[in-house]
Amino acid sequence: MSEPPLTAGRDRIGFIGLGIMGRPMALNLLHAGYNLVVHSRSRGPVDALVAEGAERGAGPADVAARSDAVITMLPDTPDLERVVRGPGGLLEASRPGLLLIDMSTVDPIATRGIAEEMRARGVGMVDAPVSGGEQGAIGGTLSIMVGGGEADVARARPVLDVLGAKVVHIGEVGAGQVAKAANQLVVGATIEAVAEALALATAAGVDPAKVREALLGGFAASRILEVHGQRMLDRSFSPGFRARLHLKDAGIARRSAAAYGVPTPALEAALAGFQQLVDSDRGDLDHSALFLLADGGAHEEP
Amino acid sequence: MSEPPLTAGRDRIGFIGLGIMGRPMALNLLHAGYNLVVHSRSRGPVDALVAEGAERGAGPADVAARSDAVITMLPDTPDLERVVRGPGGLLEASRPGLLLIDMSTVDPIATRGIAEEMRARGVGMVDAPVSGGEQGAIGGTLSIMVGGGEADVARARPVLDVLGAKVVHIGEVGAGQVAKAANQLVVGATIEAVAEALALATAAGVDPAKVREALLGGFAASRILEVHGQRMLDRSFSPGFRARLHLKDAGIARRSAAAYGVPTPALEAALAGFQQLVDSDRGDLDHSALFLLADGGAHEEP
Repeated sequence: MSEPPLTAGRDRIGFIGLGIMGRPMALNLLHAGYNLVVHSRSRGPVDALVAEGAERGAGPADVAARSDAVITMLPDTPDLERVVRGPGGLLEASRPGLLLIDMSTVDPIATRGIAEEMRARGVGMVDAPVSGGEQGAIGGTLSIMVGGGEADVARARPVLDVLGAKVVHIGEVGAGQVAKAANQLVVGATIEAVAEALALATAAGVDPAKVREALLGGFAASRILEVHGQRMLDRSFSPGFRARLHLKDAGIARRSAAAYGVPTPALEAALAGFQQLVDSDRGDLDHSALFLLADGGAHEEP
Repeated sequence: MSEPPLTAGRDRIGFIGLGIMGRPMALNLLHAGYNLVVHSRSRGPVDALVAEGAERGAGPADVAARSDAVITMLPDTPDLERVVRGPGGLLEASRPGLLLIDMSTVDPIATRGIAEEMRARGVGMVDAPVSGGEQGAIGGTLSIMVGGGEADVARARPVLDVLGAKVVHIGEVGAGQVAKAANQLVVGATIEAVAEALALATAAGVDPAKVREALLGGFAASRILEVHGQRMLDRSFSPGFRARLHLKDAGIARRSAAAYGVPTPALEAALAGFQQLVDSDRGDLDHSALFLLADGGAHEEP
């Protein structure tokens, strides 16, 4: 009983979670011609989407009851658990043929647990966490890492293609979240490495711009060295991607690694730095502000 | 009293240290038409170079006495200290106008100390550590990170251009070693990060090849993910660059960072991994073998 791909003008999409990311994503779906039923904790974004033509949902179960597929875009794993399992949650309105597309960045083990419960009720699930930030959400140019069965992913794909420029099917359900965790691990640890290297050069009286340039020509080359290395040279830490959000994502990677027995000391180094930034009221700086810790904070921003 | 650039056919270059790297480098200088006086601890490589037309030096001081410039390519900082300050060392034959070009990877603080002593005797010094490995040495395609005063670097440049494809003047003497330390820090910590991420994917039952591919499209992209990530997927750890050599280089970065008060937890993560490989008789594997530690050693090579 493979369902056809979600189709604009015919299918109704539920959208739960209209934050900085969710709101422009929902708007892009409306503009692409999808019927939308929306719900969010704050009333403002819901009113704004309704003014653009979306229907108002009373809560997750109501949204699910009125939709062919439900997209969730929530801050963290407990938020997803609540929306799924809480009173008035998605499970209460689950029915065969419904599709859940979770685009939040959450714990892959929680994702698999939810997917199993959904499957028992005939509900398909796709995990599709994104990278690319607010600009990617607004422009519909997100990178989307997808986990799920072939049929479910094929069904979700037209919607994902509206929201992202690069949609990669990684594997079975949960695989998108695993890829996202791996991505945030590498990005965080590479920022920490670049921060340490440029701080070392600076402390040793050597022009860090020259060091960055030399390193970009060899095996140390990375997009992080290119983009975030330049931020460090400029000491320009307006986000971008906030340190406190990377702390959350690094926590997900840590819990997954612990669950699977993978030692992750480089992740720990980055995670401790993000924690230190948050603890010193710098959690809203860009994640490249790890440089301030390696640099001894001599030139800290307020 | 700025000396003219070192010129093939006219100037005599001393070359001390004919190991895996030094031997092909010296050969390239011979082939470029430089007169060469060579010395090394082992007799074999000296005989081989003499057979190609080099002169045999009795020791560092003898080499220096007969040369316009001396290149050193030695395993570690204590070797350089011995060649410079030991009995029959370079200092004994130092004289105004001599140029020392140290291409070893050594401690930048030691480099500055030696440069100062040399300067007091009218000897110029350039530090010019390389990356690119044995293949780069053979092909004359090394990347060379150069520290030194403008006049000294200008004088050394024709020789460096024979040995390398990319010669970057980073700053004053010692700056080449600082850049090399920064490079090895970033390379080591990025390998560790990629190892952790691909091991996490593997342990979570997700195809690490798909994860690598997805990550290459975003901010996690790096040459390490590309090249060493592939090695990890292939579980192919023949060097390449040996873990025990990276351990030495990471130790240099650690000592520099400690001297300048820069905290380097990501470096520590990589360094501990290299130490663990060496301690478990895997120091001659490629440095990407850090993957074996994150992967739990389930598929260890002998």
